Amino acid sequence: MRLAELSTETGVSVATLKYYLREGLLHAGRAMSRTQAEYDETHVDRVRLVRALSEVGGLSLATIEQVLEVITEPGTDRLHVLEVAQRTLARASRTVGSDEGASVRRVRAWIEQHGWEIDPQDPFIDDLARAWEACDHAALGLDEERMDRYADHVEGIAEVDVSTVPADPEAAVRHVVLGTLLVDPVLVALRRLAQQHVSRGLQGAAARGTGTATDDADGMVSS
Amino acid sequence: MRLAELSTETGVSVATLKYYLREGLLHAGRAMSRTQAEYDETHVDRVRLVRALSEVGGLSLATIEQVLEVITEPGTDRLHVLEVAQRTLARASRTVGSDEGASVRRVRAWIEQHGWEIDPQDPFIDDLARAWEACDHAALGLDEERMDRYADHVEGIAEVDVSTVPADPEAAVRHVVLGTLLVDPVLVALRRLAQQHVSRGLQGAAARGTGTATDDADGMVSS
Repeated sequence: MRLAELSTETGVSVATLKYYLREGLLHAGRAMSRTQAEYDETHVDRVRLVRALSEVGGLSLATIEQVLEVITEPGTDRLHVLEVAQRTLARASRTVGSDEGASVRRVRAWIEQHGWEIDPQDPFIDDLARAWEACDHAALGLDEERMDRYADHVEGIAEVDVSTVPADPEAAVRHVVLGTLLVDPVLVALRRLAQQHVSRGLQGAAARGTGTATDDADGMVSS
Repeated sequence: MRLAELSTETGVSVATLKYYLREGLLHAGRAMSRTQAEYDETHVDRVRLVRALSEVGGLSLATIEQVLEVITEPGTDRLHVLEVAQRTLARASRTVGSDEGASVRRVRAWIEQHGWEIDPQDPFIDDLARAWEACDHAALGLDEERMDRYADHVEGIAEVDVSTVPADPEAAVRHVVLGTLLVDPVLVALRRLAQQHVSRGLQGAAARGTGTATDDADGMVSS
């Protein structure tokens, strides 16, 4: 297909596609003449991936370039797949300077007490410390005990993540990096929907408890 | 305290604090003279909250203004707490136009099959549809069965969320809105750490399975 067709197929403007080509986010098409090139399904896939990482994952184009580099780099050692993937993800999330203050020490102490085996230099320890501190400042009452409860459920999510990683190393890095970045928004949306479901359940139970009739099918989604 | 002290206390520049005051993100201090005002702990808390929502939650200042409006609005009905909170959150997350296409229908069908009671007009159905579609485009193999497994774990997270909402309606809206926005980054960081823990456990098990000695304490965090 021509560039205009690639644009129609992906919903991305020709100007943006040309920008992707210049920046190396999109591989060149097969040259047909001095001014025309032919694009195929690999181009459609790549454009969709760049859009997903940018719009759903919220990554900058510079970060997307780094992510693409890692996931297309051949010959990654199977054992280091997660390491490479996490390094890329850490680079993608690093926006504020890290510190080794009390909040980081609290996270390390909590991880040890919780019994997770984590590299002490893991960059996500900083992320967790910063996020936890923000919850403290908002007085959300997020203590070690509640963190334990969250962590147990998140461990279940990570087990699903890890069990679905393909055996092929190259496919695995791609899967871990993209799966981590692109499944985050899925989990965020699921959490809001689950909050609604859980809180409706509680309201229903409360109404039944006081003898009030309640129609449980009331808010059900019908397709 | 004076504005300069508020700046030292919060780590936010005087210029930014003045901007917050002008934009109504920060309530005025008690006037001491024509040019000086006195600030207290409520100002420290508010500045930290704005920073958290902006830096950790990634919200724009315009969205933060809307969030602050809702959480400081008095007299919210207890039963509508979650509704008000979710409406605010939905407004905060709405960045791309929604559509009623095949991806939204798939989410509705999945929710019904999964057995969650959700308002069919819930804006997060769109979010989930978009996020799921992005995973499809990246060929992550995220099918209904894996979505069910994620959803079960996320439901556990939502149960923790809902069980920790305070009884007072005003405090409840604040808690739900801030808890949802600020705990997201906590869960994201936990997921990456849990992936590492789970995958180390699998590597350890594999090593034990082939008779290789492995020191389980190797990567343990020490505080």
